Amino acid sequence: MPTYACDLAAIREAAERIRGIAHRTPVMTCDTLNRLAGRRLFFKCENLQKVGAFKYRGATNAVRKLTDAEAALGVVTHSSGNHAQALALAARERGIPAYIVMPKTAPLVKKAAVEGYGGKVTQCEPNLADREETANELVAKTGATLIPPFDHVDVIAGQGTAALELLEDVPDLDAIITPVGGGGLLAGCTIAAHGVKPGIRVFGAEPLGADDAARSKAGGVWVPQTAPNTIADGLLTSTGALTWPIIRDKVECVFTVTEDEIRAAMRLVWERMKLIVEPSGVVGAAVALGTAFKALAGVEKVGIVFSGGNVSLDKLYW
Amino acid sequence: MPTYACDLAAIREAAERIRGIAHRTPVMTCDTLNRLAGRRLFFKCENLQKVGAFKYRGATNAVRKLTDAEAALGVVTHSSGNHAQALALAARERGIPAYIVMPKTAPLVKKAAVEGYGGKVTQCEPNLADREETANELVAKTGATLIPPFDHVDVIAGQGTAALELLEDVPDLDAIITPVGGGGLLAGCTIAAHGVKPGIRVFGAEPLGADDAARSKAGGVWVPQTAPNTIADGLLTSTGALTWPIIRDKVECVFTVTEDEIRAAMRLVWERMKLIVEPSGVVGAAVALGTAFKALAGVEKVGIVFSGGNVSLDKLYW
Repeated sequence: MPTYACDLAAIREAAERIRGIAHRTPVMTCDTLNRLAGRRLFFKCENLQKVGAFKYRGATNAVRKLTDAEAALGVVTHSSGNHAQALALAARERGIPAYIVMPKTAPLVKKAAVEGYGGKVTQCEPNLADREETANELVAKTGATLIPPFDHVDVIAGQGTAALELLEDVPDLDAIITPVGGGGLLAGCTIAAHGVKPGIRVFGAEPLGADDAARSKAGGVWVPQTAPNTIADGLLTSTGALTWPIIRDKVECVFTVTEDEIRAAMRLVWERMKLIVEPSGVVGAAVALGTAFKALAGVEKVGIVFSGGNVSLDKLYW
Repeated sequence: MPTYACDLAAIREAAERIRGIAHRTPVMTCDTLNRLAGRRLFFKCENLQKVGAFKYRGATNAVRKLTDAEAALGVVTHSSGNHAQALALAARERGIPAYIVMPKTAPLVKKAAVEGYGGKVTQCEPNLADREETANELVAKTGATLIPPFDHVDVIAGQGTAALELLEDVPDLDAIITPVGGGGLLAGCTIAAHGVKPGIRVFGAEPLGADDAARSKAGGVWVPQTAPNTIADGLLTSTGALTWPIIRDKVECVFTVTEDEIRAAMRLVWERMKLIVEPSGVVGAAVALGTAFKALAGVEKVGIVFSGGNVSLDKLYW
């Protein structure tokens, strides 16, 4: 039996570590969505988490796990998404510096958000090689610790705390669905869910326009995401060296949804649940409302992670 | 000492009556809004109530208080707003008919929403006289009970349960702010709040474009709302014969906010709290962010009712 990046004990430790720092987010329900899905859905509202995304869990767990000596030198990451904001705030709340590498093409509003949480932004060329090189230079120069967005044991363990809380609130779930981009959330939630409730079924949700995890699962062999094309801009990356083995072995299936299904689910959630969930955050709900998932037998109660709510309100998506 | 339309005992009875039928809505907080307001704000999320508004409390209390014989004949109201949907659902959940009189000019989507909750819609001319006459005809024909949107003892008592729950969750509030249209929510919450916590300060929040309650309070004499002009379309009406005396005698002050302040508060709440609150629902937050309220001394913790979240998502408000 292979050893995975994290186990239930690590996730329980993470839960203790982030208690009172990250929000224990509410679980919400909606009669209309239940009726449309044909079963009972329980939404873990990580859109209401600090910085508006589950990423704060993993970032906080990683930052809090550093020794005082390590922490004093700060943390580094390269990200233009929710992880950047999450790490900036987690660092500020420990009183240490956060160095965030962002492509110079990133929207100003994202740079401003990171700086609003006290992060120090370093711009780089918009390609992975320069992002990594710039981050490595910062590590060399400052001695700060690199905290990547998903492929890191403490990050995966932190994200898994969402499923731990969900199952504490609704112990009799038959299944859990989470979005999958890099796979930190899905991998952590899978380990947590199987740990506290063996036999629970765990599913990934992915846009058809960035379906590397679905294709990897279908073929049993990791494939990278190339040329993603979806409004779910938090789910563009490939799964990682630590997250993929967990997804490969423990996740039952990754379902894909179209852009129209994402938009429709998003509007439904905004209208009926009065919750702002971003496109990437709503793919689990879109899966639950789709034909393929509805055809599954033996699934009465489903936990679904609304993974984030950071969306531009300058325009509507429909 | 005058006798008012309802007292704490009636609100406590209402709370028992609606328990398990209406949602006990969560109280949410936001660091960003606290910082902007200069104090701690606690938002009672009635946008997450059934039908998306506090109106479900009063409607359910009124419907559940009917005897079986009365209830069997149904209920009637004239409204094109949240009360119409609330009464329709409250009636359906008791298994009785709801006759809803709506002006023929009301948007189709509002008619569809009422019918979606099982209400029987009767159209009338778009003026108060014909609305009342049509409703009275329905009462005469069916024997159903008229449940008006705010000026009714059971409706006021039902709305007051929002403040009761808010003070159970956050007992050390110094003040409460609610929107004021007809005044059912403000009157009920005032009686509840003063009943459980004598000395707590209660404020109304009103759009400048429909400021009858503010003008009535300022002059000490009831004035009607004529020609309202505001995006807060749930707050267009005058206060009533039962609600005004409570507001006159027990509410400290009604603050007004501009349309720009409403829009700015709404965007801030959507962006930072990830909650969809309608223009009428957000006026309390707009007051808390305004200069006049910020100048008040001795107010550290403020409870604010987000009264509803029913808003068209075909367009943005900014």
